[in-house]
Amino acid sequence: MPISSSYLTASETIALAAKDELSILQLARDHIARFEQRDPAVRAWEHYDRERILKEAARLDSLPKEKRGPLFGATLGVKDVMNTLDMPTTYGSKAYQGHRPGSDAPLVHVLRNAGVLILGKTVTTEFASTMDNVPTLNPYDASRTPGGSSSGSGAAVRDFQCQLALGTQTGGSMVRPASFNGIFCIKPTWNSISRDGIKVSSLILDTPGLYARSLTDLQLLLKVLNVHDDVPPPMLPKPLSDCRFAYVKTVVWDSEGQPSREVERAWAKSRQLLEEAGAHVEDLDLGQDFENIVNGRHADIMSWDAGLNFYNEYEDPVNRRHLAQMLVEKVEARSAISQKQYLHALDSIPALRPRFDAIAEQYDAIVTPSVPGEAPQGTKTGTHIFNAMWTVLHVPCVNVPGFAGENGMPVGLTLVGPRFHDERLLTVSRSVAHVWLHADATELRPLPVPEGVKMLQI
Amino acid sequence: MPISSSYLTASETIALAAKDELSILQLARDHIARFEQRDPAVRAWEHYDRERILKEAARLDSLPKEKRGPLFGATLGVKDVMNTLDMPTTYGSKAYQGHRPGSDAPLVHVLRNAGVLILGKTVTTEFASTMDNVPTLNPYDASRTPGGSSSGSGAAVRDFQCQLALGTQTGGSMVRPASFNGIFCIKPTWNSISRDGIKVSSLILDTPGLYARSLTDLQLLLKVLNVHDDVPPPMLPKPLSDCRFAYVKTVVWDSEGQPSREVERAWAKSRQLLEEAGAHVEDLDLGQDFENIVNGRHADIMSWDAGLNFYNEYEDPVNRRHLAQMLVEKVEARSAISQKQYLHALDSIPALRPRFDAIAEQYDAIVTPSVPGEAPQGTKTGTHIFNAMWTVLHVPCVNVPGFAGENGMPVGLTLVGPRFHDERLLTVSRSVAHVWLHADATELRPLPVPEGVKMLQI
Repeated sequence: MPISSSYLTASETIALAAKDELSILQLARDHIARFEQRDPAVRAWEHYDRERILKEAARLDSLPKEKRGPLFGATLGVKDVMNTLDMPTTYGSKAYQGHRPGSDAPLVHVLRNAGVLILGKTVTTEFASTMDNVPTLNPYDASRTPGGSSSGSGAAVRDFQCQLALGTQTGGSMVRPASFNGIFCIKPTWNSISRDGIKVSSLILDTPGLYARSLTDLQLLLKVLNVHDDVPPPMLPKPLSDCRFAYVKTVVWDSEGQPSREVERAWAKSRQLLEEAGAHVEDLDLGQDFENIVNGRHADIMSWDAGLNFYNEYEDPVNRRHLAQMLVEKVEARSAISQKQYLHALDSIPALRPRFDAIAEQYDAIVTPSVPGEAPQGTKTGTHIFNAMWTVLHVPCVNVPGFAGENGMPVGLTLVGPRFHDERLLTVSRSVAHVWLHADATELRPLPVPEGVKMLQI
Repeated sequence: MPISSSYLTASETIALAAKDELSILQLARDHIARFEQRDPAVRAWEHYDRERILKEAARLDSLPKEKRGPLFGATLGVKDVMNTLDMPTTYGSKAYQGHRPGSDAPLVHVLRNAGVLILGKTVTTEFASTMDNVPTLNPYDASRTPGGSSSGSGAAVRDFQCQLALGTQTGGSMVRPASFNGIFCIKPTWNSISRDGIKVSSLILDTPGLYARSLTDLQLLLKVLNVHDDVPPPMLPKPLSDCRFAYVKTVVWDSEGQPSREVERAWAKSRQLLEEAGAHVEDLDLGQDFENIVNGRHADIMSWDAGLNFYNEYEDPVNRRHLAQMLVEKVEARSAISQKQYLHALDSIPALRPRFDAIAEQYDAIVTPSVPGEAPQGTKTGTHIFNAMWTVLHVPCVNVPGFAGENGMPVGLTLVGPRFHDERLLTVSRSVAHVWLHADATELRPLPVPEGVKMLQI
């Protein structure tokens, strides 16, 4: 019996489907089997309907060859803050149980039309805006969080329950689950993908993003979503010996207790590996203006905007009973941040964006921590302290895994590029992943998968 | 028999309902009667279901007094780009006929919870992003456009078919219909009202707004929506003799054929009226930096963003057949605007926002044209040439009607204030409306309403 298709990457199963060596029905059955085996241990899905999946698989299989899109043969999990045509969309809120928006968010619509098999909706924290209370467990260790708010997407991709998944980031909700689950993600340039049909927490911060176990899969997804650089990067990546990297600790690094020893170790080891490959690596201090973003402005915007966008839930006496205390407080605290202060935060950041782009253009990538450490124990989904600056700067971020912490949990690092250089950043990430990817493989906890299954592919 | 409640303002009928002198059922019946009489001539509604309205009215009437919200006794039309719980939402697109999103956009949710009676969905141009092909006719003259994209909302409020209505503006889609239909509107500060659940055309431009025949009604709506200045304006407005106004023509004024003689006349007459009331009025030239906004940057952003947000419609072979040729072209033209050029537009504007705020704070209001002239004949909804700058600056705008053109059609002017001074701007608008409001009343075409009906109230 051949290996289950759920252990392959999207690019691999797409190739098999193109050769008629894999039907979508088989792809569906393989993934459903993995779900049935692992769901009790991971609980990544808010909505998973086997009958709907099999029906959708049959529809895809019945398409004439010329109508099969570029994602025909791939599977997708959709974060449950994104509207979907044929499934409920709850936004992680008890007030929206069974809610059916009746259409796909444009992002989902494009992917569905490209032939992807949507398996279900993945668990999110409430409105992607709280930091607790998700049922999802880390596939490596059920006592630990998979991170959030894109909890289910990160865990499901890691656990081979889907090949691709969608998430969103307002603070650190794409990169954190990628690091905690040891997978790739790209948070592309803000406004490079339509955010229509996705629950709003903050217009200026919310950024949809993509998870996969393969960088090739992420490159394919960007292409399908029409995200491309003005100047396409060369097909053949330049050798690392021609590459320049800046290591940026940010002001967060020196804050008390940040980062953990495991991140310090990954920091040093990752740099050593790049230098051994001949890359030029230097430390970079972005300076006070950028550090102010971390110190308050991102927080002011995120908090004020949540207070604005959840005001309706607060004003509805029924929904309010379901609203997390943290969001009740954001609505009530909004008047504590004056609009003058809010505008100051909003207005002071845009000038930094082209300044950062100009800095980042001098390097092949900027390297920075994804998280302060391994996925912590318990249900709190972790901090966005290392991610906030990049979210507010609207720049593309790729999490590259490869390192292990003291407890055998994955630790990733973030590569950052200038805005609208997403393709270039993924190309550089491939080169970097070649030297980082299995750096600490023997130190990682085992996952329940058959021998020979590749955990990650470049 | 008393006058139909459809001819009263929301504030008036709310007061009657509070004294139990008007039931919501009667309010509903009065409005339905007006609809039945006038719909063939105006065609403002995309969805209007008498049974649903009467059922909703009965529900509201059955509420115990302590659960009646601040809009109990008022009627509302909702632009059909906003999601609604109990009605279809078509976004003005044939691809979304019968689409039911199953929840209210937060803006609608807050108003519904405040007790407003939602009468139906008003006609919009396709995705609020085209400039033609609406069935709605101008209530003053069926050969003329009511403007767009908020075509139905502007016409229905003018025609006494609802008291309040919601719209959106990406170019000039709030202010233009207000001027063409001779009513008040406020396009509040960007991001002062949640835009979640509203179809996206451009994240950074789209701004939800409010229509009414009374400034008191607009003040009430802002209060219910929790839009307030940091420092509330004084209860008693200052006399016009203490007020300073800047008249800003913008570079558009001198463009060929802009504006018409009727706007030039309104411009001179409005100024004369303010000066006669003792106000200080001066001309103001905002200079080259601001004019660049009009000359291309707003257009670049609006066009690029539409190409981004309607890409899914373009990629879907079924939906694409319904997509306006103009939007097909935007999707295809997106790659013609480089991302570098797009970022230049996006990055060069934010620094102007606090600069404009500082200028606007020196005046009680800035006065500027709403439109180049009267509502034109035919089905084209008109140009946003005078509105684009204020949209991209995110500043609050109020259309104050009062003037008439050569053909007896309404002509309004726009008052502009600094961001998050929406309350102050409405207060100043009251003072201004006192001297402008019926300046040209005798020159306006008559509307089919009973004698004694007040067309507008301050």
